[in-house]
Formats: sequence, C-alpha cells, structure tokens
Amino acid sequence: MNVIIDLCVVPMGVGVSVGKYVVECQKVLQEAGLNHQVHAYGTNIEGDWDEVFAAVKRCHERVHAMGAPRITTSIKVGTRTDREQSMQDKIDSVAETQM
Amino acid sequence: MNVIIDLCVVPMGVGVSVGKYVVECQKVLQEAGLNHQVHAYGTNIEGDWDEVFAAVKRCHERVHAMGAPRITTSIKVGTRTDREQSMQDKIDSVAETQM
Amino acid sequence: MNVIIDLCVVPMGVGVSVGKYVVECQKVLQEAGLNHQVHAYGTNIEGDWDEVFAAVKRCHERVHAMGAPRITTSIKVGTRTDREQSMQDKIDSVAETQM
Amino acid sequence: MNVIIDLCVVPMGVGVSVGKYVVECQKVLQEAGLNHQVHAYGTNIEGDWDEVFAAVKRCHERVHAMGAPRITTSIKVGTRTDREQSMQDKIDSVAETQM
Repeated sequence: MNVIIDLCVVPMGVGVSVGKYVVECQKVLQEAGLNHQVHAYGTNIEGDWDEVFAAVKRCHERVHAMGAPRITTSIKVGTRTDREQSMQDKIDSVAETQM
Repeated sequence: MNVIIDLCVVPMGVGVSVGKYVVECQKVLQEAGLNHQVHAYGTNIEGDWDEVFAAVKRCHERVHAMGAPRITTSIKVGTRTDREQSMQDKIDSVAETQM
Repeated sequence: MNVIIDLCVVPMGVGVSVGKYVVECQKVLQEAGLNHQVHAYGTNIEGDWDEVFAAVKRCHERVHAMGAPRITTSIKVGTRTDREQSMQDKIDSVAETQM
Repeated sequence: MNVIIDLCVVPMGVGVSVGKYVVECQKVLQEAGLNHQVHAYGTNIEGDWDEVFAAVKRCHERVHAMGAPRITTSIKVGTRTDREQSMQDKIDSVAETQM
C-alpha cells in the first residue's frame, strides 16, 4: 500500500531551537531512500507504507538518542485505492485547476 | 518503544456519515488487544510502537475494503524516554494540577 | 457557524512537564463558558466559531505570558451544514453503531 | 501576534476529488493578501493571528457554499515571542544546518 504523509516531529525538553533534530530526520529519510520534500511546517514523504512508517519510527529513535526526553509528532496520512497519485500530482492538480 | 497516539481516520468519497468506518476501526483496535479510548474527535491508543502502527495500517486496509476509495488520517504520536506514562496518567496529571 | 475542535497546545522551551500550561488552557475555556472535554492527547471544544477561536488565541497568549517562548499547536476543526451535531452526539453515534 | 500555520481543509460528502475546493481556499488566501505556499498535503500561511484565522473561517464558509455539507480541517499553529521568524526562515534554517 502506497502512502503520502506529512510529518512534523517536535522534540520537547530541549529548548526552542530544534533545527538540528529536523535535520537528523531529513538524514533518516535520505538513508531510507524515500522521496521527501521539506516545507515550513513539516515534511511530505511518499512511498510504501511499511518503509515510510519504519522511517518515522527511526526519526523518534534518533531524536531520543540525540537527547530529547520527549517527542510529540503530528502526521497526516493519505492512501487511495482509486488511482495512483504522487506528491507532485497533488501539487499539479491544484495548479491546473487554478488555470 | 511505548507510544501514545491520537488517531482520526477520515474516509473520503463515501458521503458524510462515517460512523460505520469508525466502528470498524474500533474493532481493529479491540482485536489487537490495544488499550484505547474514543473521544468526540478521534481515539487515544497506547501500546508498543509496532503493534500500534500495525493496527493503524489495518484500519486503512479495512476502511478501503469497506469501499472507501480514499482516506486521510490525522495522528498525534507521543513518546518519552524520561519516564513511563499511560493515557490515564496524562489525564490524572491535569486533574491533579487543577486542584 | 457552530464548530467542534480538538485542541492540543504544546509549549516549547520550558522542559518536558507541560501540565501547568494545559491547566491554564482549561481555565481559559472555563472562563469562556465553552463546553469542553479533556482526553489523553488534547481537549475537545464545541461552540460558536468566533468564541472558540478567540479562546484558542487566549490560550496562546496566556501560555506565552507564563514564560513559554514558543508554542506549536495542533487543531482539528469540524463544521457541518447538513445537521446539528454535538460532541456527545458523535460519541453516541459510534456507541450505537457498535450495538 | 504573528503566526505561521499549516492548513489542510478536507471537504466530506462530495466525492474523492477535492481539487476545486483547495483552489477556492487558495483564492481566499490570495484575496486576504496573506503570504502562503501550497505543498502536497496542505498550505503554509503566515501573518497576523486575526487575519489568518479570519481567512480560515472564510475557507470553511466558501467550501460549504460550494456544496460540501461537512468539513474536517487540520491546522498546525506556531507562535513565538523570542524572535521573529518567517516561513522562509524556517526552511533556510534546516538548509543551513545541513551544510
């Protein structure tokens, strides 16, 4: 089952600057070979369900290993059986409808 | 790794009444033997990371199997390494602080 | 326009224990006279759109005033025009379908 | 109070294709003169709290007016008092830390 998710990992108990944890999560996604795209309030990721969620788990493991005692994460998860749709398709569909 | 999540599964393309899909997801959680609690905008679930997310995947599979061509789900995911905390602990901690 | 929301306010830069901020938000909702219900990963609130979102704004103001330099909040927002539905209706509808 | 939000409006009861509703929300943001950026699972918006949330309300009003009887929306809301930060700053900070 293919999935598109939006991931926002928030480490708690480590101060206000969390950039280095976000970067570590980007590395996890890179290592996993998952197509992903950062935006100002999270990261879009697409791929096989199991691979995507294994990467989310590794993000939590790594961020804890870096010293964050607590993490709260928001995820949006999209699946569909009617047709294939990539992250780019979703952005294109909005752009096309606007014309 | 223990996790507490808040899960809200939204089937699309099946009309406005989605109660039966929510109930099916409750069955999935029951069958998985996971401690869970419904509220007015989702379900709190606690347990081992892998078991909890396997159940979330089964929710998507079942809701698709029931005929929903598209699903968008919101999840909040909490983990901590500083101490154990159950869903009930979280509610109690707010109640106690209020006194 | 009536609305049901699920609110989860996360103060950052103040350590791992955030119970007192959650309690302050409960006070804000109480003072606003809004029907609300705490669960293990947030608070359900129902009422008029403007009143509910004015309360959400006051939560941010109060939590900043208590010393949190940064806040990240997750909100789910539900509106419908087909019929009236309270938070209790939503919970009842799941309970009834299960029988 | 300045705010950065991530907005994802999901119309229910109107079938699986929701592109035209997303486009209508883009128009609302355009008309409001708010800086915003679409991604594959939502839209980042920045501006004054009251203006941003007035636009979110108008999105719900317009999507209902287009015929959607039910809407469920996910919002992430970020505020900070320690320093000013734009959406672009957030993306730059991740890019810089990676180098």
